[in-house]
Amino acid sequence: MKALVLHTPNSLPILTDWPTPEPDPGEVLVKLKAAALNRRDYYITQGQYPGIQCPVVLGSDGAGEIDGRRVIINPGLEWGSSEAHQSAAFTVLGMPTDGCMAEYTCVPEEYIYDTPDHLDDIQAAALPLAGVTAYRALMVRGAAQAGDSVLITGIGGGVAMMALQMAVAHDCEVYVTSSSEEKRATALTYGAAGAYDYTSADWHRTLHRDSGGIDVVVDGAGGSAMQDIIKVCRPGARIAMYGGTAGKMDGISPQILFWRQLSLLGSTMGSPQDFKSMLDFVTERGIVPVVDSIYELEDFESAFAQMHTSTQCGKLVLRCSA
Amino acid sequence: MKALVLHTPNSLPILTDWPTPEPDPGEVLVKLKAAALNRRDYYITQGQYPGIQCPVVLGSDGAGEIDGRRVIINPGLEWGSSEAHQSAAFTVLGMPTDGCMAEYTCVPEEYIYDTPDHLDDIQAAALPLAGVTAYRALMVRGAAQAGDSVLITGIGGGVAMMALQMAVAHDCEVYVTSSSEEKRATALTYGAAGAYDYTSADWHRTLHRDSGGIDVVVDGAGGSAMQDIIKVCRPGARIAMYGGTAGKMDGISPQILFWRQLSLLGSTMGSPQDFKSMLDFVTERGIVPVVDSIYELEDFESAFAQMHTSTQCGKLVLRCSA
Repeated sequence: MKALVLHTPNSLPILTDWPTPEPDPGEVLVKLKAAALNRRDYYITQGQYPGIQCPVVLGSDGAGEIDGRRVIINPGLEWGSSEAHQSAAFTVLGMPTDGCMAEYTCVPEEYIYDTPDHLDDIQAAALPLAGVTAYRALMVRGAAQAGDSVLITGIGGGVAMMALQMAVAHDCEVYVTSSSEEKRATALTYGAAGAYDYTSADWHRTLHRDSGGIDVVVDGAGGSAMQDIIKVCRPGARIAMYGGTAGKMDGISPQILFWRQLSLLGSTMGSPQDFKSMLDFVTERGIVPVVDSIYELEDFESAFAQMHTSTQCGKLVLRCSA
Repeated sequence: MKALVLHTPNSLPILTDWPTPEPDPGEVLVKLKAAALNRRDYYITQGQYPGIQCPVVLGSDGAGEIDGRRVIINPGLEWGSSEAHQSAAFTVLGMPTDGCMAEYTCVPEEYIYDTPDHLDDIQAAALPLAGVTAYRALMVRGAAQAGDSVLITGIGGGVAMMALQMAVAHDCEVYVTSSSEEKRATALTYGAAGAYDYTSADWHRTLHRDSGGIDVVVDGAGGSAMQDIIKVCRPGARIAMYGGTAGKMDGISPQILFWRQLSLLGSTMGSPQDFKSMLDFVTERGIVPVVDSIYELEDFESAFAQMHTSTQCGKLVLRCSA
C-alpha cells in the first residue's frame, strides 16, 4: 500500500510502498479514505516530540471503511481507567504505532466508531483528535454551561476552531483571539461575538469591557499572555489549557487566582468516554469540522508546508484513497 | 466594654473603652471568651489590605457564649448562593464590620454554631478562619482522598497546620515544607511523613523520591517555588492555593500542566456549607487546633509582634474575658 512513512527523525515522511498491515486478534483493518494533519505530526517531523521511533506511518486522524461500514478512529490508545488523566501506557495513534496517512491501518476494535451520518469522509477525518481535545477542554474540564461567556485563544488552529463551533452550538457567548485579521474575521462568521488581536497592548481590557468577564477559557498557548487572561476572568472561572505553544507562564498573580477562586486546568486529548460524548454532541448539534484545505496523499509536502506557516483556519486533510 | 479598635490605618489597634454593641433584628450578642489572630489582622495593621475602614474592632475569629450556650462564629459574611465562589457582597468579620477582639460582638444568627464539645474556648477561637480555609482548600477544591499523598507548604501557619491535621486525620500521607528546622520538627510530631527545607536547591527532587509523587498540594505562597511544585505532582493532581505570600508565579510549564492534567485551584475561605462540613469533620475526628501562644487582651502588642516575626507554629489567641 501507499503510506507516508517517517524513516528518520527530524525529517519529512516519504511516500513509500509499504506492507499492508494484517490485523492481530482483536484488531480490525480499516481502509482509509482520509487522514488529517495535527500540530503533533508537524512536531514529529521537526524532531520536537518526545520518544520518536522510526520507521512509522504518521497520522493520528483517520476515517474510512470496514466492509462498507463508515468508521472513524479514536486515536487515544490505552487511556486507562481514570477519567481524570491518561495512564502511563497512553499513546497517540501514528507514532509509536502506525497511523492513518496510508491506504490501510490496523487498530484494536474498541477504537472504532461509526462515522456520524452528516459528515463526509474528509470532514470525519478532521474530527477525532481536535474534536476530543476541544470537547474535554471546553465541556469536561472547563464545564461550560449554556449562557457562559467563553474565550478561545489562537483561533484558526484545529482545536480552537472545534472549541468555537462547540461553544456556539452550546449557546455560549464566544470570544476569540488571533494576531491574524483574516482568522478573526473567519471566527465571526462561525458565530464568535467578538475577536481580538492579542498583540495589541490593551486587548484584554477591551475584551473585559465587551464581555463583562469570562467564565471559561480554552487556551493552547500559555506564555506571558496568561497573566492578562486571568484578569478578564469572572469569579469561579475555569481556564482549560490543552497546549503551550507560547512557552512558560510568567507573572501569574496568586491573589487573583485565590480571591476569584479560578481554576487553571491542564487538559490532554480525552478518555474513551470523552470521545463518545464528543461524537454524540457533534451528531446532535450537526457540527461540521472546518476543513481549510484538502490534499492528495502525494501532495503531503504542501500540506506540511502549510502547517509550517500556520496560515490555515481549520484542518488540513489528506485524501488516502478514492 | 474593652475592645481592640483600629483607629487609623497602618497602625496597631488600641485597647479602647468602646460601646457594647446592641443586636439589630436577626442578630445575636455574643459574650466573647477568646479571639484568634490571623495574617489578615496583621496585614490590616500594616495598611496592606484593600478597603481599610476605621474605626473598627479587629478580629475575625471568636468563640464565646450566648446565654450560657457555647458558640463559635463563622466569619465569612454574605458568601452568597454559589458554592464555587463568594459573592461581591462577601466580607470577613472584623473589618469592615466590628469583630471579635473585644468582650462582646454582634453578628447575624446564621453565623452562629455550637462549639464542638471537645474544644475549650481558646481552642475553639483558633478554629474558624483557618479551619474553613484549610478544609475548603484540602477537601473541597483539592478533593483529597484517603491514601492520597498531600504536600502542605509553609508549615507553621494557622491554615497550613490545620490542613496538616485534617489530612493526617483523613488518612493521607502528608509532606510539609518550611525553612524553619523547628517547624519541620513540630510537623513530624503531628504526623507528617516528611518535612523539607524549600530553601535547599534540591528539595523537590528529594520529596519526589520519598513520596513517589504528590496528589494534592495546599499552598499559601505561590512565587517561583510553584514551578518546582508542579514537577512533583502525579497525573491528575490538584494544587489548591489559598494565599500568595511569595508573590507572582513565574516559569510555570504549560506542558507539565496539560500532559499531567493538573489543576491549579484558587481557594478563598469557604461557604457556609464548607464551614458546617469543617465543623462536622473536626468533631468526628476529634481535631484540636494547634495553639502556639495565649495572650491577655491587654497584651495584644506582643501577639502582633509575634505575628510580625512569624515564629509561631499554630495560632495566637487572645483571651477576651474570664
